[in-house]
Amino acid sequence: MIKKNLLYAQSGGVTPVINATACGLIEEARQHRDQLGKVYAGKNGIMGILNEQLIDTSKERKSDIAALRHTPGGAFGSCRFKLKGIEESRAQYERLIEVFKAHNIGYFFYNGGGDSADTAYKVSQIGDKLGFPVQCIGVPKTIDNDLPITDNCPGFGSVAKYVAVSIMEASLDVESMASSSTKVFVLEVMGRHAGWIAAAGGLAQRQKGDPPHIILFPEILLDEKALLQKVEKAVKAYGYCSIVVSEGVRDQQGRFLADSGRRDAFGHAQLGGVAPVIAAMITDGLGYKHHWAVSDYLQRSARHIAAKTDVEQAYAMGKAAVQLALQGKTGVMPIVVRTSDEPYQWKVGEADLAKVANREKMMPRRFISTDGFGITAAARRYLEPLIRGEDYPPYTADGLPQYVHLKNLLVPKKLSSFEL
Amino acid sequence: MIKKNLLYAQSGGVTPVINATACGLIEEARQHRDQLGKVYAGKNGIMGILNEQLIDTSKERKSDIAALRHTPGGAFGSCRFKLKGIEESRAQYERLIEVFKAHNIGYFFYNGGGDSADTAYKVSQIGDKLGFPVQCIGVPKTIDNDLPITDNCPGFGSVAKYVAVSIMEASLDVESMASSSTKVFVLEVMGRHAGWIAAAGGLAQRQKGDPPHIILFPEILLDEKALLQKVEKAVKAYGYCSIVVSEGVRDQQGRFLADSGRRDAFGHAQLGGVAPVIAAMITDGLGYKHHWAVSDYLQRSARHIAAKTDVEQAYAMGKAAVQLALQGKTGVMPIVVRTSDEPYQWKVGEADLAKVANREKMMPRRFISTDGFGITAAARRYLEPLIRGEDYPPYTADGLPQYVHLKNLLVPKKLSSFEL
Repeated sequence: MIKKNLLYAQSGGVTPVINATACGLIEEARQHRDQLGKVYAGKNGIMGILNEQLIDTSKERKSDIAALRHTPGGAFGSCRFKLKGIEESRAQYERLIEVFKAHNIGYFFYNGGGDSADTAYKVSQIGDKLGFPVQCIGVPKTIDNDLPITDNCPGFGSVAKYVAVSIMEASLDVESMASSSTKVFVLEVMGRHAGWIAAAGGLAQRQKGDPPHIILFPEILLDEKALLQKVEKAVKAYGYCSIVVSEGVRDQQGRFLADSGRRDAFGHAQLGGVAPVIAAMITDGLGYKHHWAVSDYLQRSARHIAAKTDVEQAYAMGKAAVQLALQGKTGVMPIVVRTSDEPYQWKVGEADLAKVANREKMMPRRFISTDGFGITAAARRYLEPLIRGEDYPPYTADGLPQYVHLKNLLVPKKLSSFEL
Repeated sequence: MIKKNLLYAQSGGVTPVINATACGLIEEARQHRDQLGKVYAGKNGIMGILNEQLIDTSKERKSDIAALRHTPGGAFGSCRFKLKGIEESRAQYERLIEVFKAHNIGYFFYNGGGDSADTAYKVSQIGDKLGFPVQCIGVPKTIDNDLPITDNCPGFGSVAKYVAVSIMEASLDVESMASSSTKVFVLEVMGRHAGWIAAAGGLAQRQKGDPPHIILFPEILLDEKALLQKVEKAVKAYGYCSIVVSEGVRDQQGRFLADSGRRDAFGHAQLGGVAPVIAAMITDGLGYKHHWAVSDYLQRSARHIAAKTDVEQAYAMGKAAVQLALQGKTGVMPIVVRTSDEPYQWKVGEADLAKVANREKMMPRRFISTDGFGITAAARRYLEPLIRGEDYPPYTADGLPQYVHLKNLLVPKKLSSFEL
């Protein structure tokens, strides 16, 4: 039997733990050298595959592959590039198969969100059609936590932990200064379409009165009057008000507040950032001094405060992907199956890519409190286990994390170039 | 001998480790119950003292006092309130002495920056004049690192570590996406007048080419053309450009870029935030897609990523303050004395408050590279030891840090109220 090579690619926005998935996948494949060839990785994701830029991970040291487990970002590069339908983008799909053939690829692992699951599914179909069947395995990853079927998505738990810890800490700061200074603090977090990340901020509220006092979700159109009333009530009760706002919050007309056509003194349009908009709204309406933060990529790369649960699940997904391949599966994705809330228990399951592709899991309305400004006990029950545990990266003597940069050596090209 | 009580107050912006100083001070005082009375703390700093709102820390459990070592914010509350000169604010100084008398205060510890050192110094003078001498000890604290004489200021090292780790992590994210998405990332950090915190971001650059590629300091007036050239060069060389900008960066006319008179669609003025201004400037000038983050209070409260060196020094300052009091000293402040760069060694020293008061330590020009966009080897030699070591707070099973909230019980008032 000629051993087939594996091809792995990272897709879309990276996470603090997508490399942990790569680590699990590569380490597991290396355990099965009798059946599996080399693990290649697309440089900058699927764009690199189309360009025949394949990284040979067998050139990386064992210790460097192990270090992927604690290194944020995407170690092989990722990209925002969505293949369209097979009819529309036939040339691209055919090119993928051509690259697979040229490099003896028998297994394709696509590590991403819903779009990537769709692409992986289509690649499995086209391979069959073109007479070069490839086992295509989707591998879940997204901080947005919006993949269906899987209980949660690797990447989300660590961002959730970052947000909950950050709002807890900043609130202690605000609380101690509020008598004579800032009374309102607004933290903007990611989640343009679903409030999963904003909801996670609510975990910092262990008891009534604890911060955050208000969460603004993309699912709830902003009622400015109700917001101001709620802020005033919090300031009167607790001395200050701490707010988590999703970047995707919208006004009563459904327009994103962050897209409100602002211009600065230089005439630059659309600076983005909904936190300053909310903060200014509160100061204008109530006169309270405010501070605001926009964590942006910091939340998505903060491997230093990753959740242990998340790291373990991310690693397990990579490992399971190889095991599915060894079982001869194609068109599937390993998933997280929650078997118990308390004690929290989970196992690896699998889902058909066709059922995962192009379906977004929205946050249930029952996770948002009746007044629309907080999370419910049901949300807490779901979210809390996902941020459990700490999994610190090693640090060097200079006080900084020991993150790895791989060599990323490319496999020699065998094909002519391809116009993307 | 009648034992005198101690009075401690936190002043100005809080830090991730100001409570570690409180912890050192209270724990040390509790070791000397034979000579020292109770430790009281001003509720919300000196405002609480003027209002005779004194917290009795002897009511707090030993374990809660110990937990101050790892709890951010200001556990007794702080305030922004500066006493003016003795002639101008005589009534307030006299009130302080009246409160001291009423509660048998023999030692006053004021934990803050330059203004607080000035106040502590003046209180020591007025006490003598009014025939109620109190030993006044300043205790250093400021993330701005701008106190003179002391080698560095407790609070700064942890913020420095947060900024260096954050820009390192976010840069890994940007680097992995840059081929098809965001090419420029801008992180705004604190430091309105001095670039100490921005400079700390430069520690993430271990080797040439490492991020951050550009640092914008308040000390250097922004040359937009030079900035754009530098950004373009970085993107061409490394595929992306990572930038740390101080909130205090100014244009060629010396105006703060963050105060550029912006208005949003609602007509709200001055949203603040220089990161979006810099980011928009780059996209307008070069067309690169950008992302930006404003860490604001997150950087100042991120106890979860505090520097061990900083925590130890903060604790040592609190402890040393009590020892100075026991030695009969007044009008002094414990300081950090660096005795060696490599290996980094420090000891506790002392300085006269009169020499500390109202003097700002600016960052030396030799710490900024010739082109004005980075730090020098001298800066690195000074800064690097300050972010060394990790000192994680304990976490509870729910994945969140175990920060303490004290009972903060007030001592019964003995005086009539005072109009602030």
